[in-house]
Amino acid sequence: MKIAVDAMGGDHAPVEIVKGVDIALQKFPDLEIILYGNEKLIKQTLTSKERVSIVHTEEKIYSEEDPVLAVRRKKDASLVLAAKAVKDGEAAAMVSAGSTGAVLTAGLFIVGRIEGIERPALAPTFPTANGKGVVLLDVGANAECKPKYLQQFAIMGSIYAEKVRGVKNPRVGLINIGTEENKGNDLAKATFDLLKESKLNFVGNVEPREILNPPADVLVTDGWTGNMVLKTTEGVASTLFKMMKETMTSDWKSKLAAAILKPNLKKLKKRMDYEEEGGASLFGIKSPVIKAHGSSDANAFYNAIRQAKIMAGVNLAEEISKAISE
Amino acid sequence: MKIAVDAMGGDHAPVEIVKGVDIALQKFPDLEIILYGNEKLIKQTLTSKERVSIVHTEEKIYSEEDPVLAVRRKKDASLVLAAKAVKDGEAAAMVSAGSTGAVLTAGLFIVGRIEGIERPALAPTFPTANGKGVVLLDVGANAECKPKYLQQFAIMGSIYAEKVRGVKNPRVGLINIGTEENKGNDLAKATFDLLKESKLNFVGNVEPREILNPPADVLVTDGWTGNMVLKTTEGVASTLFKMMKETMTSDWKSKLAAAILKPNLKKLKKRMDYEEEGGASLFGIKSPVIKAHGSSDANAFYNAIRQAKIMAGVNLAEEISKAISE
Repeated sequence: MKIAVDAMGGDHAPVEIVKGVDIALQKFPDLEIILYGNEKLIKQTLTSKERVSIVHTEEKIYSEEDPVLAVRRKKDASLVLAAKAVKDGEAAAMVSAGSTGAVLTAGLFIVGRIEGIERPALAPTFPTANGKGVVLLDVGANAECKPKYLQQFAIMGSIYAEKVRGVKNPRVGLINIGTEENKGNDLAKATFDLLKESKLNFVGNVEPREILNPPADVLVTDGWTGNMVLKTTEGVASTLFKMMKETMTSDWKSKLAAAILKPNLKKLKKRMDYEEEGGASLFGIKSPVIKAHGSSDANAFYNAIRQAKIMAGVNLAEEISKAISE
Repeated sequence: MKIAVDAMGGDHAPVEIVKGVDIALQKFPDLEIILYGNEKLIKQTLTSKERVSIVHTEEKIYSEEDPVLAVRRKKDASLVLAAKAVKDGEAAAMVSAGSTGAVLTAGLFIVGRIEGIERPALAPTFPTANGKGVVLLDVGANAECKPKYLQQFAIMGSIYAEKVRGVKNPRVGLINIGTEENKGNDLAKATFDLLKESKLNFVGNVEPREILNPPADVLVTDGWTGNMVLKTTEGVASTLFKMMKETMTSDWKSKLAAAILKPNLKKLKKRMDYEEEGGASLFGIKSPVIKAHGSSDANAFYNAIRQAKIMAGVNLAEEISKAISE
């Protein structure tokens, strides 16, 4: 299995990206990687000698750039070359920690949408208190949505949960401001009706109060709302952990107590760590496109590659095509 | 100053409500309270002898009821009577821990909207890491909004922050999925333009990642999004505190360490406690209507009364009328 990696995307590129590639190559003997980026810089870090090749390019996309213009104009950008490799069948999937907009654009316009899919969706696996995680979509590919799009998100999320995450008969929930059937804005109400009539295992509305303990395996919403829920969760969790840390270092007694608790608290923080879950997948695209977190370190990027590998091993596009046409 | 209190609303009514009233009467020698509800039950708890009266009624509104129908039909419900007292000028403000929908309906249809206000907004003061709090609106009065509504929310929030919370030249932020000017859905983009042109101290878009450290004193959004941000924050904070507690009681060493940290952790939890900030105000209504948290205990309800008292002491409706007509 060959995976294309954009070596130049993300805050810690290319060093942490390349280190993540090294880990992945060590763990998976059947994996091959093509790295796109500055060969000289990549080689400064890369330790793997086998199953890895570098396609040198000096062009890359910056996060401040307009993603659509950048992907169109910079034909030799590392991200664009990686996406082209997937399009041309040279690689089975691609991974980038570059800007979300650019990865979305490259996935949509270069790799291409699955026929019948109205809109692709960006879908991370969200950490939950029980450690099982929940697939949340869309978290930002589409700020404005129609009920039909959300219905397709539900189908894609359900297939992903079953085929990639191994959840039997995945429970699909609709994010809403109340649990009752008649709750919400116009979009939520219309989507509720579509999901209720579908063949999915629809469990009804889920309030974001339950985001870390959701009674569902897949949570569906529009990209605006999903992005709000995602960013609020990240913000609240990171601020609370920071405040906790301040509390625990405020005097010597607290420091002593914190030292005792440290191993358990580390475990807790890890359980709530997004990066352990890999990246966000772009659903509805012909081949797996994974957007790793911009701040990915080697381990986070390794997890994103692992996820791409699992996704490429299942023919998701075909499953999705079949389900959509039904 | 006379305040009308719905003694029968909330999960712990009337006991905790009445206890909260007792605290408020003790703390504020110039305060008078009219309690609406079951006299016999109220008297079982009430210790105050002076500056308090009870208007007996056996009718009350249940949280499962359709709020509009319930407020219309149950003319003698404790909430309805309290709202009528405000309308008739018998009380300067009202407080209820009843269902949000019913309090909204009573405020809107009985107390009445300020002329020129398109939609009232529900506005809690959100706790922040620095302890100063931020006024967030709307959190659920209007699931569907127009840019004009959000502009009015910004004006009302700004007046509240200045007159009630004592913030000079309050910074107003727009909740959005990115900080750049061109970000967001259609509503956010159009609202951005309106706020930019206004006389408000508009500081631009604020991502919900910063919800506990916001670079603003007032955060404006539609009721759907505000409710999402509010409930996500509540859910994540309460789950993390719970997980933290589990971690700290997992073995005897952790328990020992936790005992040392307890006083500081309690302080931290209190800093993040919504109930310390009083209730959510209904902005755009002729007199102050405060919705206390449904799970309010005596102290939380006391804080909501305190807030109503401060609000009634400032002529907000007039200030808002003036600003809107400009």
